[in-house]
Amino acid sequence: MAKHPYPLFLLDRTKRGSLQLQLRLNLKRLVHNGVLEPGKEVPSSRELARELQISRNTVLQVYDRLVGEGYLEALPRRGLFVSQLLEERSLRRAGLGEANLPPSRPVNIFTRLAPIPFRPCQPDVRLFPLHLWNRARGKALRKHGADLLRYQSDEPLGLPQLRQSLAAYLQGSRGVRCDWRQVAITTGSQQALFLLAHLLLKPGDPVAMEDPGYLGARWAWQHIGATIDPIPVDSAGMRFESEKRFSPKLIYTTPSRQFPIGSCLSLPRRVALVAFAANKKSWIVEDDYDSEFRYSRAPLPSLQSLDSSQRVIYVGSTSKVLFPSLRIGYAVLPVSLVEKFARLRAVLDEHGPLIDQAALAEFIESGALYRHIRRCRRAYAQRLTAFQDSASQFGLPIHFPHTDGGMNQAGLLCCPGSDKEHSLRLSREGLEIPPLSRYSLRAISPGLLFGFTAFEPNTIRRSIKLVSRALNAR
Amino acid sequence: MAKHPYPLFLLDRTKRGSLQLQLRLNLKRLVHNGVLEPGKEVPSSRELARELQISRNTVLQVYDRLVGEGYLEALPRRGLFVSQLLEERSLRRAGLGEANLPPSRPVNIFTRLAPIPFRPCQPDVRLFPLHLWNRARGKALRKHGADLLRYQSDEPLGLPQLRQSLAAYLQGSRGVRCDWRQVAITTGSQQALFLLAHLLLKPGDPVAMEDPGYLGARWAWQHIGATIDPIPVDSAGMRFESEKRFSPKLIYTTPSRQFPIGSCLSLPRRVALVAFAANKKSWIVEDDYDSEFRYSRAPLPSLQSLDSSQRVIYVGSTSKVLFPSLRIGYAVLPVSLVEKFARLRAVLDEHGPLIDQAALAEFIESGALYRHIRRCRRAYAQRLTAFQDSASQFGLPIHFPHTDGGMNQAGLLCCPGSDKEHSLRLSREGLEIPPLSRYSLRAISPGLLFGFTAFEPNTIRRSIKLVSRALNAR
Repeated sequence: MAKHPYPLFLLDRTKRGSLQLQLRLNLKRLVHNGVLEPGKEVPSSRELARELQISRNTVLQVYDRLVGEGYLEALPRRGLFVSQLLEERSLRRAGLGEANLPPSRPVNIFTRLAPIPFRPCQPDVRLFPLHLWNRARGKALRKHGADLLRYQSDEPLGLPQLRQSLAAYLQGSRGVRCDWRQVAITTGSQQALFLLAHLLLKPGDPVAMEDPGYLGARWAWQHIGATIDPIPVDSAGMRFESEKRFSPKLIYTTPSRQFPIGSCLSLPRRVALVAFAANKKSWIVEDDYDSEFRYSRAPLPSLQSLDSSQRVIYVGSTSKVLFPSLRIGYAVLPVSLVEKFARLRAVLDEHGPLIDQAALAEFIESGALYRHIRRCRRAYAQRLTAFQDSASQFGLPIHFPHTDGGMNQAGLLCCPGSDKEHSLRLSREGLEIPPLSRYSLRAISPGLLFGFTAFEPNTIRRSIKLVSRALNAR
Repeated sequence: MAKHPYPLFLLDRTKRGSLQLQLRLNLKRLVHNGVLEPGKEVPSSRELARELQISRNTVLQVYDRLVGEGYLEALPRRGLFVSQLLEERSLRRAGLGEANLPPSRPVNIFTRLAPIPFRPCQPDVRLFPLHLWNRARGKALRKHGADLLRYQSDEPLGLPQLRQSLAAYLQGSRGVRCDWRQVAITTGSQQALFLLAHLLLKPGDPVAMEDPGYLGARWAWQHIGATIDPIPVDSAGMRFESEKRFSPKLIYTTPSRQFPIGSCLSLPRRVALVAFAANKKSWIVEDDYDSEFRYSRAPLPSLQSLDSSQRVIYVGSTSKVLFPSLRIGYAVLPVSLVEKFARLRAVLDEHGPLIDQAALAEFIESGALYRHIRRCRRAYAQRLTAFQDSASQFGLPIHFPHTDGGMNQAGLLCCPGSDKEHSLRLSREGLEIPPLSRYSLRAISPGLLFGFTAFEPNTIRRSIKLVSRALNAR
């Protein structure tokens, strides 16, 4: 321990539940008052646990959280360090109640934004044809001039031109049947989920959602105080038992490619689910996540296209097919919800930025969107192959049950240990591979989620080798 | 009545409260099934009221609403007509339950977005230096490249670079004291209000706000189920009686230039209000609306700069000083709220679009923002003069108590009749001049709200002449 002449932590052991919190605040304080300088290595979880006589798991969880908050950084094959990027001085000078302020970050944090392998759900933005986007934007501005700069408070659902382009695109690519006035533009799909939660749910309402499932959706339902009923997922998607006596107010699903598992909801289950919702007067929120990136099979029809009772709300996003920071998502609403949705949106933030909406409409109409999706599909298919080849080449002790598409590969662990532990160990190798259990409410088979789309084949191979070494070294 | 061979309306007089609704739906139906064709004149309120034997007020209110919904259009000096822009056929073809779908609008609705005199709160976007904006955007993209296209989920409060620029700008121009990490970028100021409502209020909580006051704020508080306590406004701003025994959870005010009245909260009242909030542990939401456009006096210090107890949340927007469709607003948060605000924002829509945020940071740092504000200030001062000169030249029967700044002029009516009636009559002249009573919960002196900033001096003179003729013709 000479390497880490740690001041004694004052841990109050009478408050058992708060050991983690105490440890975390103590570590932060050491960072803030400069005892732990940026770049300094922190002791291994084993060492610190031994010294403080607390469980190693407690230390692991605190480290995990401090990495997430940007206080600590994992450097590949070296260990955990106090983040070099913390501007120690600015923190102290501010003196603004450190416990409440988020950690200081350097002014230009972009270098930290580039995803490290294998962060899930990251498109490769370097493939995006920014020059074509700028051309579409310029065209829109020349066409509309200053008119594009004004308020559009009487159209909180977005620019009619874009809503029409999207309606046509969704009809062509996903069989979505709607009038363009049913299309609402939102700030990412997350805002659509938030608005739907506020529109359709009351505290205590039961919501059925896939488990494991998408956290952003769960947060939206939980924010309104809904009760989550976790539905298991198998190789044919959500295993929804329609005989069940319960009547969910809302059913959330990612049928094209279940997030995070990756299975596709089978056609019989689609038909049964839509019939169940019509019968029970439940709403279905169909988050058509990952529908664009299939490399072999053709996609199944959307739930929305099967629904004749106007119970399905189709939600999508341009974050993956264009670029995430554009923040344009959309919802295709049943007619009965259009006005209410628009009213709530107006209270929430009036409407979204218009220049980008007009640019996107031009971009779609020029055919550039289709061409970009095709290009990404080719690149991502190669990366998936590189991923699968390296996984078998380096003997990854992981089984990948759904290998046919998407942006991520969910793998079930074939080695002992919890997925949280494995994920944390991998983070010390400079990798970001979240545990599947992060996305679930119930206990599930331990596994890891790999996103492969943002990384070159070479990076993928190198990183898989690292993963393999770490997992097999145990 | 030969001019209007109206089919008989089926009005059910046993349901008294719903006469308006019935009339409205009947009129819409006539539009939808083509009996009332686009361009056709509708009968005057007097005629229709006589024929249907209902009160003229009922008809007026229905007409008012149908104008707002885009079904009817007022043509200057001619009367009310079914909107030429309604695409009658597409409405019928859609067959999507007309009662629930918003009215059809033509694809390119921009021509309708240009404000007509004297719509309040409209900057003149034609003055905006779009080429400088595009230059700032290009610079940001060259600087950051693809990094600007990624997710920034770990910074839901926005781009650090922009938050720093804004912190410096607000400190310089408004005396706001904060660390940049207290600045949150929002989708317009409306999203800041919505987030604050959800963060600070529970159903039933008392909220004190100026009456008349800003509707967007009232909607945000009401959405969460807060109880509004309307506070009267006089020539020194909000007349808040600090002796009052009630303890509002939140106090909402527009101190720089009260919306819509235009008075400025006096310094003694500012000091008293901040002390009251500290004492009662109330939150103050300081919406610094219109602080940029003062033409004679220097602005008073912001409430935020007077507050040493971290009870003031400073809210602002770039909609007026740049352009509304940019949808960038901001809140300066007390330290204790920063993390909670960020978490809620992440659930709401993750974060806002980044390219615009980076462009705005460059735009501010280049000095272009300051130059643009100065340029607008000069133009708007001329327009205010034109407004005041024409008002006296044409003998407007209206008294303007606060003539020293801002984007709007609130005028008290010196002629008989309700302000709603006058506003509706003026809408038939092709003018958009909302009644002050629209913004109030309690009965107030009848008045009208004129926005003057979006219109050339010539347009202002011509329109004032029209207003004068309509009001004096009575």
